[in-house]
Amino acid sequence: MTLPAVTTLLLERAQGVLTITLNRPDVRNAMSLAMVEELRAVLRTSAADASIRALVLRGAGGHFCAGGDIKDMAGARARAQTDGEDAYRHLNRAFGALLEDAQNAPQVLIAVLEGAVLGGGFGLACVSDIAIAQSGAKFGLPETSLGIIPAQIAPFVVKRIGLTQTRRLALTAARFDGAEALRLGLVHFAEAEVEERLAQVLEQVRQCAPGANAATKALLLATENEPLNTLLDEAAGLFAAAVVGEEGVEGTMAFMQKRKPGWAV
Amino acid sequence: MTLPAVTTLLLERAQGVLTITLNRPDVRNAMSLAMVEELRAVLRTSAADASIRALVLRGAGGHFCAGGDIKDMAGARARAQTDGEDAYRHLNRAFGALLEDAQNAPQVLIAVLEGAVLGGGFGLACVSDIAIAQSGAKFGLPETSLGIIPAQIAPFVVKRIGLTQTRRLALTAARFDGAEALRLGLVHFAEAEVEERLAQVLEQVRQCAPGANAATKALLLATENEPLNTLLDEAAGLFAAAVVGEEGVEGTMAFMQKRKPGWAV
Amino acid sequence: MTLPAVTTLLLERAQGVLTITLNRPDVRNAMSLAMVEELRAVLRTSAADASIRALVLRGAGGHFCAGGDIKDMAGARARAQTDGEDAYRHLNRAFGALLEDAQNAPQVLIAVLEGAVLGGGFGLACVSDIAIAQSGAKFGLPETSLGIIPAQIAPFVVKRIGLTQTRRLALTAARFDGAEALRLGLVHFAEAEVEERLAQVLEQVRQCAPGANAATKALLLATENEPLNTLLDEAAGLFAAAVVGEEGVEGTMAFMQKRKPGWAV
Repeated sequence: MTLPAVTTLLLERAQGVLTITLNRPDVRNAMSLAMVEELRAVLRTSAADASIRALVLRGAGGHFCAGGDIKDMAGARARAQTDGEDAYRHLNRAFGALLEDAQNAPQVLIAVLEGAVLGGGFGLACVSDIAIAQSGAKFGLPETSLGIIPAQIAPFVVKRIGLTQTRRLALTAARFDGAEALRLGLVHFAEAEVEERLAQVLEQVRQCAPGANAATKALLLATENEPLNTLLDEAAGLFAAAVVGEEGVEGTMAFMQKRKPGWAV
Repeated sequence: MTLPAVTTLLLERAQGVLTITLNRPDVRNAMSLAMVEELRAVLRTSAADASIRALVLRGAGGHFCAGGDIKDMAGARARAQTDGEDAYRHLNRAFGALLEDAQNAPQVLIAVLEGAVLGGGFGLACVSDIAIAQSGAKFGLPETSLGIIPAQIAPFVVKRIGLTQTRRLALTAARFDGAEALRLGLVHFAEAEVEERLAQVLEQVRQCAPGANAATKALLLATENEPLNTLLDEAAGLFAAAVVGEEGVEGTMAFMQKRKPGWAV
Repeated sequence: MTLPAVTTLLLERAQGVLTITLNRPDVRNAMSLAMVEELRAVLRTSAADASIRALVLRGAGGHFCAGGDIKDMAGARARAQTDGEDAYRHLNRAFGALLEDAQNAPQVLIAVLEGAVLGGGFGLACVSDIAIAQSGAKFGLPETSLGIIPAQIAPFVVKRIGLTQTRRLALTAARFDGAEALRLGLVHFAEAEVEERLAQVLEQVRQCAPGANAATKALLLATENEPLNTLLDEAAGLFAAAVVGEEGVEGTMAFMQKRKPGWAV
């Protein structure tokens, strides 16, 4: 499948991994409306492409993402003089839609978090399946110190690290580093050097069957919304389908034959 | 706004901070029905007072709160001889109503946890936005070792530290200190000396716009009850209102002009 | 009450504690359908027996449980040739029903986790009230590396350690030890030697009133499903009933008289 043409991102595809690099280094990859729309288009395309097994999301120039773009805000403000608050509302909700899309990506989404991981960048980190922070990265939710609110981000942060930690971070605009992000459960790894860990994680993901991973991820996300009993009934059906499916047959045969399954070679 | 007259509390107001000190040191600030009612009255008044930006809740005499007052229980027991179990039910539910009020306070609620933090005191700690424990504080849920149950407290403890940790603590009546409270995610800081940390946290809170903080806190609490999509739609409206509001305009202008916003000076 | 006759388990009853040992050491206590049914029968019987205050679940031969039984899967596969996927579905859902039963056991359920704690064994660990891991135990969710999915287990893992950690573990099939299980909040203790800790935990449980513990456990589990206000109203009724009940009267009298309550001696 052809990936969409983009100007705010770099896209690189190799060995089943699509690396998406936020590429506005002059503004520490601040999230513009254009970048939001391009990311959503890329996720839409990759979601339908079974040959992509993992997505790596990172930033160019030593930063992940410094948050919303002030100029975009200014542009929205100009329009807002006629449209009331509608332009801001639209801008904000579009970013939330991106977070929903990224959360629901069928692939394993790996975030590599270096430099600034602020506001909207913090939100993006919260929808990754695996987050690798550079020890010295700078995390924070600065919104309320600017007189605004972490509106679309808040629900994803609570889901990520729980209400208890979120309330302190959001109400004090505190900054913290990768080691603290690990302690708070925001990221899975904090490393002086991220590349080696990224390679190791990708290697682990390759050991797992792509279809089984997609089904498992959807099931994990559904646990937040569905009653347990219903979910377990559905899950039993998914299990049976997986066992008799192509991956299930190959996986158990490979296990018996003490060889690697086809997807892992 | 005039604060209500109280006998079980000390109230002190300075620089936008209302310090509420539980003041029954002879019983380690055990929670009586009178204290519950006074705390609720104070929270009701402060909720309507925009000049109060933070609440500090602490205890006199080196203890936070040792739990429910046994004498009050005895009084309720005397009344219960005619009213059946109604008196106990009322006493208990009133404490839960206090926890709900404290959880929903529009201000940032900071708990300073020294000495005994037991039963009802443990519950109060669980509804704070920021909790600072003295390293040697004594935490625990002793209810089931007394043949009773942590009834109103239980839901707030689960929300605070999750089901996994709560079930062990509640079913073993285990005691633990401030360092362990930090490890369990019950508190945000464990310090040999709490005052310096409290001053630092208050300084951070002052950097954040009061209205934005109140809106953010309400949003964080709502994430537990509302479906994601609805919440994100509402949040976009709140974001737009914040941006065009007084704090949003001042905050972005201050940011552009590289000065502190009005609420932070 | 007479415990059911079993062939895959060892049952030992002493001092109010029922120890259930998974006993198929030649297959690292892999979970067969027979074992699932026997465990459910034992839990059904013990749930109705007020003299049992704690359940200890562990494995024979140095392993807790290595997951589902491959031979059982093969048996189900043979039957599946006529029944479509129904045999797998049934096998899988039965294991989920076991997890539900274990989660809802009125007694305190203590899991002792040594050696392999994989797949279904991992799921069982997630429904314990108190989990004690041997430091060198091997934890993991290998399903997707076999082309299948952690179907019945997934919701219990998310409830246990949260979505953030679960997604990494399930989508990478990563293995980890007892120390890491402690850090992830999966277990409450990681010990070089588990017996001493088990004895200490059982001693703590004996300090707590059995009826109060059962009511508290049910309340904690209900917090996940009921709205806060309803729950607090119900909890106040439960509190009142506990206070005037036999345990509540004995507990407060023992407290006043500075002696141990009857259930703790």
